[in-house]
Amino acid sequence: MIDFQTDPSRYRHWKLSFDGPVATLTMDVDPNAPLLGGYELKLNSYDLGVDIELADAVTRLRFEHPEAGAVILRSGNPNVFCAGANIRMLAKASHGHKVNFCKFTNETRLAIEDACANSGQRYLAAISGGAAGGGYELALTADHLMLIDDRRSAVSLPELPLLAVLPGTGGLTRLTDKRKMRRDRADVFCTTEEGVRGKRAVEWRLVDEVVPPSAWEATVQERALAMAHRPPATGIKLTPLRREIGPDAVIYPNVRVTLDRPGRRATILVRGPESTPLNLTGIHAMGDQFWPLAMARELDDALLHLRLNEPNLGLLVFRSEGDPKYLLDADALLTTHAHDWLVREITLLLKRVFKRVDMTARSLITLVEEGSCFAGSLAELVFAADRSVMQTTVATLHLSPLNFGPLPMGNDLTRLATRFFGEPDSTGQAWARVGEPLDADAAETLGLITTAYDDTDWADEVRLLLEERASFSPDALTGLEANLRFPGPETMETRIFGRLTAWQNWIFQRPNAVGDNGSLKRYGTGERPTFDPARV
Amino acid sequence: MIDFQTDPSRYRHWKLSFDGPVATLTMDVDPNAPLLGGYELKLNSYDLGVDIELADAVTRLRFEHPEAGAVILRSGNPNVFCAGANIRMLAKASHGHKVNFCKFTNETRLAIEDACANSGQRYLAAISGGAAGGGYELALTADHLMLIDDRRSAVSLPELPLLAVLPGTGGLTRLTDKRKMRRDRADVFCTTEEGVRGKRAVEWRLVDEVVPPSAWEATVQERALAMAHRPPATGIKLTPLRREIGPDAVIYPNVRVTLDRPGRRATILVRGPESTPLNLTGIHAMGDQFWPLAMARELDDALLHLRLNEPNLGLLVFRSEGDPKYLLDADALLTTHAHDWLVREITLLLKRVFKRVDMTARSLITLVEEGSCFAGSLAELVFAADRSVMQTTVATLHLSPLNFGPLPMGNDLTRLATRFFGEPDSTGQAWARVGEPLDADAAETLGLITTAYDDTDWADEVRLLLEERASFSPDALTGLEANLRFPGPETMETRIFGRLTAWQNWIFQRPNAVGDNGSLKRYGTGERPTFDPARV
Repeated sequence: MIDFQTDPSRYRHWKLSFDGPVATLTMDVDPNAPLLGGYELKLNSYDLGVDIELADAVTRLRFEHPEAGAVILRSGNPNVFCAGANIRMLAKASHGHKVNFCKFTNETRLAIEDACANSGQRYLAAISGGAAGGGYELALTADHLMLIDDRRSAVSLPELPLLAVLPGTGGLTRLTDKRKMRRDRADVFCTTEEGVRGKRAVEWRLVDEVVPPSAWEATVQERALAMAHRPPATGIKLTPLRREIGPDAVIYPNVRVTLDRPGRRATILVRGPESTPLNLTGIHAMGDQFWPLAMARELDDALLHLRLNEPNLGLLVFRSEGDPKYLLDADALLTTHAHDWLVREITLLLKRVFKRVDMTARSLITLVEEGSCFAGSLAELVFAADRSVMQTTVATLHLSPLNFGPLPMGNDLTRLATRFFGEPDSTGQAWARVGEPLDADAAETLGLITTAYDDTDWADEVRLLLEERASFSPDALTGLEANLRFPGPETMETRIFGRLTAWQNWIFQRPNAVGDNGSLKRYGTGERPTFDPARV
Repeated sequence: MIDFQTDPSRYRHWKLSFDGPVATLTMDVDPNAPLLGGYELKLNSYDLGVDIELADAVTRLRFEHPEAGAVILRSGNPNVFCAGANIRMLAKASHGHKVNFCKFTNETRLAIEDACANSGQRYLAAISGGAAGGGYELALTADHLMLIDDRRSAVSLPELPLLAVLPGTGGLTRLTDKRKMRRDRADVFCTTEEGVRGKRAVEWRLVDEVVPPSAWEATVQERALAMAHRPPATGIKLTPLRREIGPDAVIYPNVRVTLDRPGRRATILVRGPESTPLNLTGIHAMGDQFWPLAMARELDDALLHLRLNEPNLGLLVFRSEGDPKYLLDADALLTTHAHDWLVREITLLLKRVFKRVDMTARSLITLVEEGSCFAGSLAELVFAADRSVMQTTVATLHLSPLNFGPLPMGNDLTRLATRFFGEPDSTGQAWARVGEPLDADAAETLGLITTAYDDTDWADEVRLLLEERASFSPDALTGLEANLRFPGPETMETRIFGRLTAWQNWIFQRPNAVGDNGSLKRYGTGERPTFDPARV
């Protein structure tokens, strides 16, 4: 089982240190601790295990170290910044593992950018030694990229010439959309194994500055200090999740996942809170036990567990139980205290977890039924679903202001705005009903659910829906959902997952990359790969 | 060899008829005339051969029938509007053929939308009988969709449940982006084999109106007449292309393609005009011999020939020869007379042909060398290329106003604006140099080319560049180019090719669709496909 839970005391590959407002996140990969086994993590190369620690560090920096206004991303290896994803790992991993590895690393890098953009916790990449492939892609997430000018250190995206795959951890998209590199220069850069260094790296906007070795350490510190503008604050502790993993269930205090293997589905039941703190002091006092934060962490872990460890469960059914009143109260606290650093972090984490739902390549069906508590932020699971069905008479749905702004999808629109892309007035009509209990008739009229079913038909209709979904081709559903969930406008983020990743996944199926004579299998054997020359 | 040239006298599958300002394009597929052989084109299903005729008809309607302000798209088969792409054809076609078939059909459908949006030649889909899959996708291109309300005729996208592939001829994207259907309704629609008819089809925005059978013919005519608002005009004749196809060359009067099979490349040499008509009357008198139109038709045919018939030539090298003066004169005529219907059509065809260049999955390298005439509209081949290199001292490049607006890419930006996505000032600097001969130094400073090479190094540098490119994985290059050519903003058009198509191509590689037990192979055998349940 791949476990996404860790903490700094267990890190094998990263070190976190602090100096006033400046944190330092040092990559120093232990070659002898690969996640899958059978390869060495040489030259600060990474696999999913390395990235799980990085994701943990990025989250902890936000909750546990709000005093850190700048984070220096650097290498503990004197010779290399980071050599990117480990090639032996890619060569031996299944298609599904490769795809999910890339997705998770992309989500982690977007989380770094979210910290820079929305938390005032700004990253600085201090590149000393080569930053190749995924190594440079990691650096690209920073607000400021510094490259030591030692005639040896370079940035590069050598995937295409070396491995016949794409710089798929956002690399191509960040070059064009974030660094706004000219497309033909990007073409040269991505086909030049040795990369670019020195003055040209700045001229081509690959890095923001190059610094001579003699001034390196001082300049890194100076830049980091200048970037750090966060008011003082005291973090909270993210304690280990309480989790029981059984053969057919994963149980957390607020989230209960039950696995139906013959039905090829998992049911994710979210239990609403049973109380709400009175005020901001109460939220800080509860720390990671405050329901929205606790639930978000548990749901996130559950999603990742299902993605990597339960690939055959193609259908996620979201349910909830509890009193919607407490959910609306919690949302009201999040809205009222939106400018508090902790409340902001909780809301941003909710945003990221719901984005993880959107990006989960499983069919998502939400059941709004008797006793459920899809209210406010939790109702995002209704709007994220491919279909949401609701029981007449006995079930209710509630909206809160959190459905109208703070929890956007990767396309920068709310789920409601995405849903009502063709009928913007419907968003206004929904806004007018914030806080009201909406029964199935009202929810259907407002366009908030897909279908309402009568009490008497409910069980049968739900069963038919789930059975039908499970009968379709898993791949076709993945493709369908990747299109329908993201109508209209795109952002760098959606283009990473929708364009770059889709092409990479195609390449990951092609013999030129993954066949016995393909580049990934032949890498390091001394034999060159042989390519089918046909272009499609 | 697949030939893209045809004319109405040779059509097997379509009929064109005219009644004043209303044209009718009737699909009546001959089941016994499949392009590839080995299947019957039942139920108005189509293959590439059917679509080649459609593309020809759409182009002729614009040049030969400018009097037609409305085009009724209908079926000559009393039982079915169109059953979509032929499934037996898909099952037997190679991956490369499937991908290129889908690309061409998408380009043809976008050409219909271009006529609606930019030529005032508006399409009306008169759907009588089932419009399934590609059949409904074809109807979706129309400005107005009418469905007969006969309790039998329905629109549907049954690809997913029936074939385990996507409605990939723009279907998913047009549902969300053009028809602006709510995403969960689109999910229901795309998983419901039998489709939707009657009132619900209107409510879900799948069609614009349903009409009872008794009023059908009269209403179709009425709507078409109401849509037709084009001033009277007399068309020109599109005469057959003069073309010689040899073993290693395809030669047209203005375009010469030479094939270097060992080098895996084709060189496309465009010969500039040797004279220019004096005025608008001269353009109309020359008709399809006016250089921009003649060249556009020849280049288009050459691109399609290379795509379908020469898959192993992964590299297209663009060259030109001639006097840039005449090119600039021709561009000046196109600019001065932009409001003339024929001039507008020529410019719009140039736009579509250059878009076909952008969408060609081959590496594109443009050589600006001694004697070349990349000026104005032809310089789009410099900006479309993945790399453009220029010889110092002896070569020149010229810009014209046509580089700054009338020839946008699928992303709705000009190639220069796309190129300068990160430095919008550069577009203004280029604009200031319109009409001037720019040598390699100037072109490099302005950012118009990738690299300038000295005369003495030119031959070697070019050889190295072409050899290096030919050594890379064809698939990785396809993915790289599909990303780098389209930085930043997306449109429905780029999302069809970049998101929908990329996922479809992935699915077209997956055993669940194309394996021996997959849906395409099993279709019609009475045996259900067996799916690997794993989601990736």
